[in-house]
Amino acid sequence: MLKPEKTLATQQIYQGRAVSVRVDTVENASGKETTREVVKHSDCVAVAVLDEQDNVLLVRQFRHAVGKFLLEIPAGGIDPGEDPVDAVCRELQEEIGYFPRRIDRLGGFYAIPGYGTEYLHCFFATDLVPGRLVAEDTESIELVRVPSEQIPLLIMSGEICDAKSVAALLLFLCVRQAK
Amino acid sequence: MLKPEKTLATQQIYQGRAVSVRVDTVENASGKETTREVVKHSDCVAVAVLDEQDNVLLVRQFRHAVGKFLLEIPAGGIDPGEDPVDAVCRELQEEIGYFPRRIDRLGGFYAIPGYGTEYLHCFFATDLVPGRLVAEDTESIELVRVPSEQIPLLIMSGEICDAKSVAALLLFLCVRQAK
Repeated sequence: MLKPEKTLATQQIYQGRAVSVRVDTVENASGKETTREVVKHSDCVAVAVLDEQDNVLLVRQFRHAVGKFLLEIPAGGIDPGEDPVDAVCRELQEEIGYFPRRIDRLGGFYAIPGYGTEYLHCFFATDLVPGRLVAEDTESIELVRVPSEQIPLLIMSGEICDAKSVAALLLFLCVRQAK
Repeated sequence: MLKPEKTLATQQIYQGRAVSVRVDTVENASGKETTREVVKHSDCVAVAVLDEQDNVLLVRQFRHAVGKFLLEIPAGGIDPGEDPVDAVCRELQEEIGYFPRRIDRLGGFYAIPGYGTEYLHCFFATDLVPGRLVAEDTESIELVRVPSEQIPLLIMSGEICDAKSVAALLLFLCVRQAK
C-alpha cells in the first residue's frame, strides 16, 4: 500500500520573475525524513493549431536555457485568474497573430512532476482569423507551417524536440485518429 | 532573420541537491537587455518498457511537487559520466526489478526549454529478465502492467498525465506503427 508524503516544513529559497524555489522537509513512505526541492512555475496552455489547409502552425524561437533555436507549438503561462481558454486566445494572437474561433480541449499533463509544479492545459485550435493584436515580437518568433502528415516524421527525426510539443501533437493525432 | 540571445552576465542563485538556479542577463533578439531564469537539472532517461505479453510496465509513485500519485514510465537522472544506456539498465533494476536485454533509442526531448536545461533521452526496452538488484524502495513505488493497446485511452482519460510519459509512450506507438 503506497502512502503519500507528509510535509513537515517549508523553506522559501528564491522568488523570481517566472520561477520560485522552495525546499520542503517531508516524511517519506518509509517514515524517514528527507527533503524535496520544488520549482514553482505558473500553469500554462499549449496549443496544437491547424489552418484550413491542414497545416500545423509552429513557432521557432531561441531558448536561452538550452542554448538553441527550437521548433515548438504555441504555448505560454496562464495569468493569475485567467481562464485557460482566454490564455489560448491571447497567446495565439501574441505568438502567431491569429485568433482561433474554435478551441477544443485535448487533455493536459505535468511538465516535470519530479521537481516542479507546472501543469500544461493542452488544446486544439482551428478556424483561424487574423488577430486584433499584432504578434508580440516578430524579431524573436518565426511562424512555421508544416503539413500535419509530416508531424510524426519531424518528431521522430528530432526536429521537434520539446516534451510539450511532442506530447500535445501526438495526442492531437491520436485523438483525431480515434474519431 | 532570428538571432540567438547573447549572455552578458550570470548570477548563481541556488545550488541544491538535484536542482540549481541561475539568473542570466542577456541581450535579446531586439538588442534589449533582459534576464532569464535557468533551472539546471541533470539529463535523464525515460523508458517505454514492454514485457513478452505486450504489456507496458508503468510505475505509480507519490510526486511531492504536485501532491499526487502519478502513473508514469520508469525514468531517472543520468549520473555524471554515465552512458544513457547504462542509466536505463540501472533505473529499470532500481524501479521495476528487471534488467532489459534489448534497448532501442526512441528519440529525446527537452523537458522545459523555456526555463530549464533537462534533456530526456527516450528508450524502448524489452526482453526483460529479473534484475540482480532488488527494487530500490518497494514502499514508495508500485509496478503496474497495462496492455499496450490501452495506453492511448489511459492518456486521453488523463490517467497518465506527465509530459515525458505521454510523449515517450505515444512516440513508441508511433514508431511501432511506422514499421
